[in-house]
Amino acid sequence: MNYPILDTINGIKDLKALDEKQLPALCEELREFLIENVSKTGGHLASSLGAVDLIVAMHYVFDSPNDKLVFDVGHQSYAHKILTGRKEAFTTLRQENGISGFPKFSESEHDVFNTGHASTAISAALGLARAMRLKGEKNMAVALVGDGAMTGGLSFEALDDAGQDKLPLLIILNDNQMSISKNVGGLKDSLTTMRTNRTYNAFKRWLTGALETSRFGQFLSRHMEHFKNRAKRFLAPNLPFEEFGILYLGPIDGHDVRKVVKYLRRCKELNKPMILHAITTKGKGYPFAVENPEKFHGIAPFEIMTGKVSPERQKTCSEIFGETMIRLAKDNDKLIAITAAMPSGTGLTTFAETYPDRFFDVGIAEAHAVTMAAGLARGGMRPVVAVYSSFLQRAYDSLLHDVCLQNLPVVIAVDRAGLVGSDGETHQGIFDPAFLSTMPNLAVYSPSSQRELSAMLEMAVSRKEPCVVRYPRGSLPDVPMKTKLYFGEWEIVEPMQDTVIVAHGTLLPLAKWIAKKNGTGLVNARFLQPLDEEMIAYFRENGTRLLVLEENTVSLGEKLALRCNPCRVRSVALPEEPISQASVQRQRERYGFTEEHVTKVLKELMEEA
Amino acid sequence: MNYPILDTINGIKDLKALDEKQLPALCEELREFLIENVSKTGGHLASSLGAVDLIVAMHYVFDSPNDKLVFDVGHQSYAHKILTGRKEAFTTLRQENGISGFPKFSESEHDVFNTGHASTAISAALGLARAMRLKGEKNMAVALVGDGAMTGGLSFEALDDAGQDKLPLLIILNDNQMSISKNVGGLKDSLTTMRTNRTYNAFKRWLTGALETSRFGQFLSRHMEHFKNRAKRFLAPNLPFEEFGILYLGPIDGHDVRKVVKYLRRCKELNKPMILHAITTKGKGYPFAVENPEKFHGIAPFEIMTGKVSPERQKTCSEIFGETMIRLAKDNDKLIAITAAMPSGTGLTTFAETYPDRFFDVGIAEAHAVTMAAGLARGGMRPVVAVYSSFLQRAYDSLLHDVCLQNLPVVIAVDRAGLVGSDGETHQGIFDPAFLSTMPNLAVYSPSSQRELSAMLEMAVSRKEPCVVRYPRGSLPDVPMKTKLYFGEWEIVEPMQDTVIVAHGTLLPLAKWIAKKNGTGLVNARFLQPLDEEMIAYFRENGTRLLVLEENTVSLGEKLALRCNPCRVRSVALPEEPISQASVQRQRERYGFTEEHVTKVLKELMEEA
Repeated sequence: MNYPILDTINGIKDLKALDEKQLPALCEELREFLIENVSKTGGHLASSLGAVDLIVAMHYVFDSPNDKLVFDVGHQSYAHKILTGRKEAFTTLRQENGISGFPKFSESEHDVFNTGHASTAISAALGLARAMRLKGEKNMAVALVGDGAMTGGLSFEALDDAGQDKLPLLIILNDNQMSISKNVGGLKDSLTTMRTNRTYNAFKRWLTGALETSRFGQFLSRHMEHFKNRAKRFLAPNLPFEEFGILYLGPIDGHDVRKVVKYLRRCKELNKPMILHAITTKGKGYPFAVENPEKFHGIAPFEIMTGKVSPERQKTCSEIFGETMIRLAKDNDKLIAITAAMPSGTGLTTFAETYPDRFFDVGIAEAHAVTMAAGLARGGMRPVVAVYSSFLQRAYDSLLHDVCLQNLPVVIAVDRAGLVGSDGETHQGIFDPAFLSTMPNLAVYSPSSQRELSAMLEMAVSRKEPCVVRYPRGSLPDVPMKTKLYFGEWEIVEPMQDTVIVAHGTLLPLAKWIAKKNGTGLVNARFLQPLDEEMIAYFRENGTRLLVLEENTVSLGEKLALRCNPCRVRSVALPEEPISQASVQRQRERYGFTEEHVTKVLKELMEEA
Repeated sequence: MNYPILDTINGIKDLKALDEKQLPALCEELREFLIENVSKTGGHLASSLGAVDLIVAMHYVFDSPNDKLVFDVGHQSYAHKILTGRKEAFTTLRQENGISGFPKFSESEHDVFNTGHASTAISAALGLARAMRLKGEKNMAVALVGDGAMTGGLSFEALDDAGQDKLPLLIILNDNQMSISKNVGGLKDSLTTMRTNRTYNAFKRWLTGALETSRFGQFLSRHMEHFKNRAKRFLAPNLPFEEFGILYLGPIDGHDVRKVVKYLRRCKELNKPMILHAITTKGKGYPFAVENPEKFHGIAPFEIMTGKVSPERQKTCSEIFGETMIRLAKDNDKLIAITAAMPSGTGLTTFAETYPDRFFDVGIAEAHAVTMAAGLARGGMRPVVAVYSSFLQRAYDSLLHDVCLQNLPVVIAVDRAGLVGSDGETHQGIFDPAFLSTMPNLAVYSPSSQRELSAMLEMAVSRKEPCVVRYPRGSLPDVPMKTKLYFGEWEIVEPMQDTVIVAHGTLLPLAKWIAKKNGTGLVNARFLQPLDEEMIAYFRENGTRLLVLEENTVSLGEKLALRCNPCRVRSVALPEEPISQASVQRQRERYGFTEEHVTKVLKELMEEA
């Protein structure tokens, strides 16, 4: 492909040297470039396409890294990466040793704050703005935030705090009417009204005209602003941001890059917290992505001409979860499914269509999802909250305080548990076994096959204690269960010997292969909580040597070491460190989940005096 | 004292039998009763006094437990407890085996949802409302929420979700202009405007008059409501709730019990999400509490006539923390203090006065406090976030995702770590060592004396990694440090022997006593992270027998058991169960932190073959 303008841009200095009239063409080239590259690497295409014009305008107007640009979630920052010196490296996107799919300050001074989870940008930008004020610097902090991320409580906490401070803080609301799926919530309705209110838009056009014939700063005298706010309020039924003391500007067309530039220049003159509301289209510039933004939110390599991903993959755990939920809901009218803005990612799309009354998408609001589920459980329902492991981190206190301390029958279906591959550090589902392990009353199920997953879900919704069923990204083996599932009991896969491997979930096949080759016992630790105390007593009494394998930060290994003390216990687990992007297979190899390494540790254990 | 009306009330049936005219007198009696009793037991007096009239009206109008009454935080629910059959038991408030200071459904069917932490009530009430709709029940869910709790992101997540559903859900906003301290944030300014806007209030009086001469339901025809909203919006500059699709009513005087009854009756007729804004005075009815609501928020037993607490107590860790911060800030102009609505509780009141520019109270918004601190740190500042252990649970993901993965120099000063006594289950600071233990890059300091606390804070703000300094409620011993503090090094308190006790923080004095009596070694594990690997290697090489004492759910004991394997390791720690109210001393005894029990475990360990 040919990129006549983009080819001349090797840093933001080159961008700033462009004539403003060239910007629309540059945006088109950036979109072509993104489509061409992401079709080969996979990645977050749809959001990045939608944010191209906003990002070009941000860099054209602001002075990064002196002005601080923060990208909420960060998966929309691809254009920013390309413009700030990472165009050549873009072919390595999300690959091992390549550039990250999210901002990383180890990559560039222009990535001022690392992101990955939603709703952090306003808090972070406010902190950066406060630091600049304290240092006597006059630059601006700018947060680019999607309307989906506005449904997260953290965004509201930050807005509420930002409103008290008259700091140069600009929030660019990138409103594409989507989270990963369609956006939800009362605020969304507010935004819709703001987008579509005709009286208000006519007034705004008049006001904008007036603004353009006068000096903006002068015009916004205290009196006029007061009048304008009251008038806006009368004409536009819903203006949620100014309640927090934050100036609202917009809505404007977020794909009209020159208009965005004009507005950003005005914002730059104002020394206060502001929101600029920009309307964008997720997937802009690639018809398949506009048509199906959810599919192209995060996508594997695909064929540009057809939009097709190949090869066809096998059934995922999310799909098994969704199918099982539909089957269970048929015979149990108390069963409820809840998602925090991920109906498709968690496999609940069909459930939502089949049982619309018993399905709740609460927005990107994991804490509320879990506390609301506790309310449903107290009301006699059987709620199942489907959430990714790394996002359950958002609901730690809701799970502990509202579900576990009250011992309520809430099921948390934890998807993307374990290593997740190319999303890297922020999305690894490796902390939950440790942070769940001290929650009172909680049961934790770890299936190692599709059928075990299904059986565990069925058991989980039939029992009375709070519980977590955790399963990996992608698929689990489609193999029969050899033994029936009993609550709290581990499965003896290979008969007990002097040395026994204890593994669970994704690591069971590797463990089985090694156990067979080395003649050791093998236990499938189906329940991480409660522990199988009977089997632990057996180990302790027999002085069994234990090798514990965990695709998460160490948890079960330490527990067995204390409980089986003084048995010899070795652990192969993930270290407490950020785990960067690579394929899951490579990540496993990097941390020693290989036949070679595990066998070496096993041999050492077997040969210890 | 004499309570002519209250004496006749043994349940809500008796309340409902009263003539409406008797309610104001009942409220006065309830306040007298609260003052008399809480002066003896201690407790959350100020909030409870302020909510008396609202609670009397709620029970007078609604039909608990069919209607579901949820109390946010729950420390304001004393009148509810007295009215629902716990008047006699009220003398046992917050004492071992007595009634809890928070709602507990194990106590009464009228306590429909247990609380303790702020901002959960709207989520829980929405879950209860959805459960009722699914079961075909027509009752109402009612959440009593303070204006402080509205600053928490969870409240906003719930409002956003509630706005989509046309459910009978009533939020009573108990607006006393306070969190525990003075309330903060942009929303607070909105509420202030709503309280004080004269034009609007005049309009509202007219509207209320109109409403009273017609049938309320009829009057609120779609058209009129639409007009009314627009008019309200023009007249009242700030109406944050209707943005979420929630009907706003008020403000009304929350101490005019008959007016509250009138409004609640109207709300009961409406089948939609609503907010009734009631203005109250924290501490109402007790002059000392009105004057100093922060002191009387949660108070020890006091003398009614003077408001004085006796006896005078020794210096608390919070005070040491506050003093150290002021000393360190003098020489370090980058040092920042942050609190989530607890300037006084965390000991920062004087800091806030001394360094107002470097002090941020962000409201009840722990996640934002930590993510905003990460932004400050990226901007070159040295932020210290002071937060109670049980409330840090709210910021788990912010600490992991925004601070630790980015390896930013944020200090978290964790107050109320360990057992906390009469607040019970929801406030125990016993989970943080376990949930912190897998966070990348994080250091965790555990001081055992006042001077160690001070030295550790000084070290913490001078270093580059993220860290937590955790210290207990109340005080630590005022004893000299025998050895200098080195990062990551444990202190040998009693010389190494075949058996060594490893302890930290509050348990060090007990451990020292027992070590001396039994001739064992003693190590002060000053750092829970990173572990002292050199000393661990010594233990492993020498086959040292270890007894690990922890006033939290097991963490260090398991870590040493795995790392020192196959050394013999025993642990005395807290179990993973809800720990109910009692004095801290009694809670320690209950879980085996006594000379007798620890000595028994130690002897078993020493005598093992």
